[in-house]
Amino acid sequence: MALYVHKYGGTSMGSTERIRNVARRVAKWVRAGHQVVVVPSAMSGETNRLLGLAKEIWPGKAGDAYHRELDQLAATGEQASSALLAIALQAEGLQAVSFTGWQVPVRTDSSYTKARIESIDDQHVRAELDAGKVVIVTGFQGIDAGNNITTLGRGGSDTSAVAIAAAIRAHECLIYTDVDGVYTTDPRVVPEARRLNTLSFEEMLEMASLGSKVLQIRSVEFAGKYKVPLRVLSSFTPWDIDIEEEAKSGTLITLEEDEQMEKAIVSGIAFSRDEAKISILGVPDHPGVAYRILGAVADARVDVDVIIQNVSKDGKTDFSFTVPRADLERASLLLRDKVLPELGTDQLVTDAKIAKVSIVGIGMRSQVGVASTMFRTLSEEGINIKMISTSEIKTSVVIDEKYVELAVRALHRAFGLDQ
Amino acid sequence: MALYVHKYGGTSMGSTERIRNVARRVAKWVRAGHQVVVVPSAMSGETNRLLGLAKEIWPGKAGDAYHRELDQLAATGEQASSALLAIALQAEGLQAVSFTGWQVPVRTDSSYTKARIESIDDQHVRAELDAGKVVIVTGFQGIDAGNNITTLGRGGSDTSAVAIAAAIRAHECLIYTDVDGVYTTDPRVVPEARRLNTLSFEEMLEMASLGSKVLQIRSVEFAGKYKVPLRVLSSFTPWDIDIEEEAKSGTLITLEEDEQMEKAIVSGIAFSRDEAKISILGVPDHPGVAYRILGAVADARVDVDVIIQNVSKDGKTDFSFTVPRADLERASLLLRDKVLPELGTDQLVTDAKIAKVSIVGIGMRSQVGVASTMFRTLSEEGINIKMISTSEIKTSVVIDEKYVELAVRALHRAFGLDQ
Repeated sequence: MALYVHKYGGTSMGSTERIRNVARRVAKWVRAGHQVVVVPSAMSGETNRLLGLAKEIWPGKAGDAYHRELDQLAATGEQASSALLAIALQAEGLQAVSFTGWQVPVRTDSSYTKARIESIDDQHVRAELDAGKVVIVTGFQGIDAGNNITTLGRGGSDTSAVAIAAAIRAHECLIYTDVDGVYTTDPRVVPEARRLNTLSFEEMLEMASLGSKVLQIRSVEFAGKYKVPLRVLSSFTPWDIDIEEEAKSGTLITLEEDEQMEKAIVSGIAFSRDEAKISILGVPDHPGVAYRILGAVADARVDVDVIIQNVSKDGKTDFSFTVPRADLERASLLLRDKVLPELGTDQLVTDAKIAKVSIVGIGMRSQVGVASTMFRTLSEEGINIKMISTSEIKTSVVIDEKYVELAVRALHRAFGLDQ
Repeated sequence: MALYVHKYGGTSMGSTERIRNVARRVAKWVRAGHQVVVVPSAMSGETNRLLGLAKEIWPGKAGDAYHRELDQLAATGEQASSALLAIALQAEGLQAVSFTGWQVPVRTDSSYTKARIESIDDQHVRAELDAGKVVIVTGFQGIDAGNNITTLGRGGSDTSAVAIAAAIRAHECLIYTDVDGVYTTDPRVVPEARRLNTLSFEEMLEMASLGSKVLQIRSVEFAGKYKVPLRVLSSFTPWDIDIEEEAKSGTLITLEEDEQMEKAIVSGIAFSRDEAKISILGVPDHPGVAYRILGAVADARVDVDVIIQNVSKDGKTDFSFTVPRADLERASLLLRDKVLPELGTDQLVTDAKIAKVSIVGIGMRSQVGVASTMFRTLSEEGINIKMISTSEIKTSVVIDEKYVELAVRALHRAFGLDQ
C-alpha cells in the first residue's frame, strides 16, 4: 500500500463520460490498496470559455484589481471539475471529497494569474485520507494572505499536483497526459525517437525549458526541490489495464542516484523555434555595458536566454543575445530609443529566423568531448553555429531555423539515441 | 447618500451584454453618491447546466457526501457571474471587488442544497465599501462550520441579498427582477390587477407562501425579522432611467407602521394549484389520532398545509388535509400501508383537482366581516367551499380547481382591488 497523487489534464476531464473513466481508473488504484489524492484540471475548453467572457466584457485590460477577478473567475473551472469527479468516484462506490485551493488551504503569493505556491497545509487532506476517502484537490489555484483566490498560470495544475505530493510525502506523483512519456526528442521530427524510462529532475528541467512541452517547468523545479518522483504516463490507455503494468509505464523523473536511472551520456535532444537574436555591434568595451543593455530589456519584462559577448577589438565589442520571438519588436524598439544613443552606436541587427537545439544529459558532467561531437556532427551536415551556450548538463547552439529538423535528426543519431 | 443592496437575477446576468447593463445601472447609483453592494445570481441556465453534468455522471443519487459535492459544483455559477460583474464595473471606471460566500464569510448550517444562513461577518464588505469600492457578493451560497461550501436552494440569492442588507444595515434592498412589482393578484388571471406601491412583510409572506412567486419566502422572513425594507422592481427598464424615478418604482415591502403603507382591508388575492386533498373517513375520535396521521406524513417529509377535523359523530370523525400535489401518491400509499390499518378504517379519499384561494391583508385584523364577504362572493358565483383555513391576516379556501380563475376575479372585484 502506498500514497499516490494522480493528476489528470483537461482532455481527460473533457466530458462526463471521460470523468467517469478517470473515476474508474482511480477506483482501480484504491481497490489495489493504495491511498489516492487526485488533482484534476478544468474540463477542456472551460478556462478559455470563462476568460473569453471576461474579454467580451472588457477586452485587453490589465491591472491588479482586474487580474484578481480573472482568478476568481478562472478558479471556478477546477472547482466544478473536482466536484464532478468526486461524484463520479461516489458513483463507483468509493468515499470521495473535493477541496478547493482555499479549503486545503494552498497558500500562494499575490501575483494574480501567475501566483507561486508558498505552503500547503496537509492536515485536512490527511484526515480525509485516513478516513478512507479519495481526496480531490483543485489544481491551478490557491489563496494569498488576504484570502484572495489566485491561479498559478497555464499548466499550473502540474505544479499543484507536485506541491501536494510533496506536502503529503506521496510515493509518486503520476501525471496522466496525452503523451505516453518523455521522448529522446520530438517524434514528429525524428520517428526513431525513443521513450525514456527514467530521467533526472535536472535533465527534465533542461528538456522542459528548451521546448519539450510535456510538463510545466515549475512543476519539475518543485519535484526536484522536494524530491517527489514524477511519472509522466498516458491517460489514453484503457482504465482497466493491469495496475502493475500501469505503475511501470511512461517516464519516471527522479533523483539521479536512483538505481534504475539510465546512464546515457546524452538523454535527449530539445529544440525551440520560439526565439530571436538581437546583436548590437560596436559597443564600447567597458564595465557596465552589459548591465545597461540587459537591464533595460529586463525592465521591459522580456526574458533573455543565450548571451554572447565577442572579444574586444579597438576598444569595441559585439554583444548578442536571444529573446522570445514575440518580444523581438518591442525589445528592438526599446533598445533603439533608449539604449543605443547612450552607447554611441546605431548598429542593431535582428534575426527572427533562428532556432535553438540542445543536447541534454547528466552523463555530460563526467564525459569530455560531448560538445565537440555535437559541433562536429553539425559541421558535417554543413550547419553553421551562430551562438553557443553551455551548462553542466546541456549544450545549446543557435542555428538557422531552416536546419532545425536536420540538426535534431543528425544529433539524435550521433549520440545513439535511436538504439 | 445611502447604502443599498442590489440583487440581480439570472436573466439580468444572462449574457456579457446584460452584465454590462447591470454594471451601468449600478454605476448610475454610485455616481449619484450611494454605496452599493451587489448580489448577482448565476448567469441564466448555468446552475441547470452544472447540475445536469452531475446528473449525467450519477442520476438520482442522494446522500450528504453527494449533496456536499453538488453545492461545491453549483456555487461556481455565482462565483463566475460575480467576477464578471466586478470586471464590468471596472470597465465602467469604478473600483469593484467580488467576494464568494466563504470570503465574506456567510456562515450557514450544514444542510447541503438547502442551507440556512446563521451569520454574516460584515467586516470585509464594510472595509471595501469604505475604501470606495462596489462590493459584489455571490448570492445563493455560504460555508458551514467545517468550511464546506453550502447553497441555499433555488431562489436563495434573494435571501443572500436580504441577509447582507441586514448585516450592513442597508437603507433598502432592491430586488431587480423580471416583474415590475407585487400585484394585487396574478395579472394573467385578472387583467385589472394593480401593482401595489407598498405591502407589509407579513402580507408579502402570506402572498409568497400562497403561490405568488415574486420572492423566495425565506428572504421575506429574513427581511421582516431584521426590518430590511425590500423593494421589488423591474430589471427591464433602461439602465439610464432617472434614478429618482427608479428609486420610487416597484413595490416596497416594509413595516406596517410605515407612513406610506396603504391601509386597504385586503391587499391581494393569492392562489395555488399545487395542492391536493386527502380525507380519511371514520377515524376514531380520541387523543393522538391527528399525531398518528400527520406524524407519519411529516416523517416522509411531505408538507401538510390546510388541516380540517370535522365534528365527531358516534365516536368517529373525518380528517382532511392538503399536501403538495406532487407528493399525493406517496402520502396516500404510506397512509394505506402504515396508518389506516392501525386506525381501523380503510376509507381514504383523495382529490388532486383542487385549488387554494386566499385573501391577504393586514386590515383584516381590525375589520370584522371580511371572511363573510369572501364566502358570500364565492356563494354568489356558485362555487362550493371544500375547506377553510384562517390566520390573522389571511383567509384561505380550498375549492374545485376548475373555479379558480372565476373565484379570483370575483374576489378581486368584491374587495375593490381593481380601483
